[in-house]
Amino acid sequence: METRRFRATVEYDGTHYCGFQRQVPSRPTIQARLEQALARIASRPVPVTGAGRTDTGVHASGQVISFDLAWSHDEEALCRALNANLPADIAVRDLMPAAAAFHPRFAARRRLYHYYLYNAPVRSPLRRLRSWHLSRPLALAPMNEAAAALVGEHDFATFGRPPQGDNTVRTVYRAHWSRHDEEDMLVFAVEGNAFLQRMVRSLVGSLRLVGDGRWSVADFLAAFHARDRARAGQTAPPEGLCLVAVFYD
Amino acid sequence: METRRFRATVEYDGTHYCGFQRQVPSRPTIQARLEQALARIASRPVPVTGAGRTDTGVHASGQVISFDLAWSHDEEALCRALNANLPADIAVRDLMPAAAAFHPRFAARRRLYHYYLYNAPVRSPLRRLRSWHLSRPLALAPMNEAAAALVGEHDFATFGRPPQGDNTVRTVYRAHWSRHDEEDMLVFAVEGNAFLQRMVRSLVGSLRLVGDGRWSVADFLAAFHARDRARAGQTAPPEGLCLVAVFYD
Repeated sequence: METRRFRATVEYDGTHYCGFQRQVPSRPTIQARLEQALARIASRPVPVTGAGRTDTGVHASGQVISFDLAWSHDEEALCRALNANLPADIAVRDLMPAAAAFHPRFAARRRLYHYYLYNAPVRSPLRRLRSWHLSRPLALAPMNEAAAALVGEHDFATFGRPPQGDNTVRTVYRAHWSRHDEEDMLVFAVEGNAFLQRMVRSLVGSLRLVGDGRWSVADFLAAFHARDRARAGQTAPPEGLCLVAVFYD
Repeated sequence: METRRFRATVEYDGTHYCGFQRQVPSRPTIQARLEQALARIASRPVPVTGAGRTDTGVHASGQVISFDLAWSHDEEALCRALNANLPADIAVRDLMPAAAAFHPRFAARRRLYHYYLYNAPVRSPLRRLRSWHLSRPLALAPMNEAAAALVGEHDFATFGRPPQGDNTVRTVYRAHWSRHDEEDMLVFAVEGNAFLQRMVRSLVGSLRLVGDGRWSVADFLAAFHARDRARAGQTAPPEGLCLVAVFYD
């Protein structure tokens, strides 16, 4: 039976994983767990390619992967078989046939991330695995004024390093803070063609300085335009970050 | 220094606990962890009383506790000291002085629980610790028609056993299913003067049979009025349940 290429949307709770990308066998990663599940189904190794390399502790509700598999049943049955072989903290949410040349990273046009920031006097046990807790009150208006400057094609060297090479220019299509249904939860939605390493977390760590008054919007812009990694604020912790969607043509 | 009585609102992620109530020392419970934190602060044992005995794996965003403590600083400082001594999955959200005779269980007039039911074709890793996943589509209208019959003073013997004695009559003030901000998340809000053991989870397990068509509303009412524990549906799992608030006069 011939192998066909499949594309799947994967959701995971990154709490107990060393990120998406396969590493030494002793370190649990999302990619390794997906490949394990596929190997059990195929009875041979099946490499998985992902759209984005989420870091240790980062979550995803819309990571996209591809793999090649000889499968004679329908896609729903493959989705069920995969989920039966995956742990509770990883699931394939949907699955479809893909063109033989489809590559989830190279073909991706835009990525959408959400960062959850819980801004309340006391930490919240029920929100701790999905958000960054900051007790100092944050002002949304200046944070959004600063975030608006990110939109467009810019050199984001202040906020991260490229995964390879030295091109730090990226295009951000939107970058906006809003309040979640719960008043105390701030959500930063940022969409771009691609992101530098830790870029979203570095942006969040810098924008919070604007929110709590330690930086003016002008301070933020000066750091941004300095294109100097040392000028960024603290990198926000991974548990607040979630890869929500990857978009293709 | 004289001891004073305090009342506190406690939030916890019940995933890793054998319920609220202290048991043998080897079993982790919320009460035991709170008493440990207070003992460290007071340098002597401080018993904690809770409003409700949540079961293994059940969460709370609004459990109420009381304890007596000799404390010379303000309440905010005590709240901070407690949270510094509690693990990440338990927190005191607010704290205030209470009358010397205040008892969080006996003085409680009403309790509000939420039950989260994730109703989607595929399980969700990011929602798994806070909800019950059911893939079969549920119809909200008949579930709410059945739930409406619960409101009032009734014998709830079908849905639970009393913690002591044999009185199974309770008063339910409201019982209603709604869709959360996410369409796939159903939330059952139920408020009563008190609840039998596992009553909310037993109600949810029976109402879902109405939702997926295995029971008619009449079947539900027949089971309810039979006052027979054996007539209830499956008890829903604990992770979907959360004690949201306890009300006092």
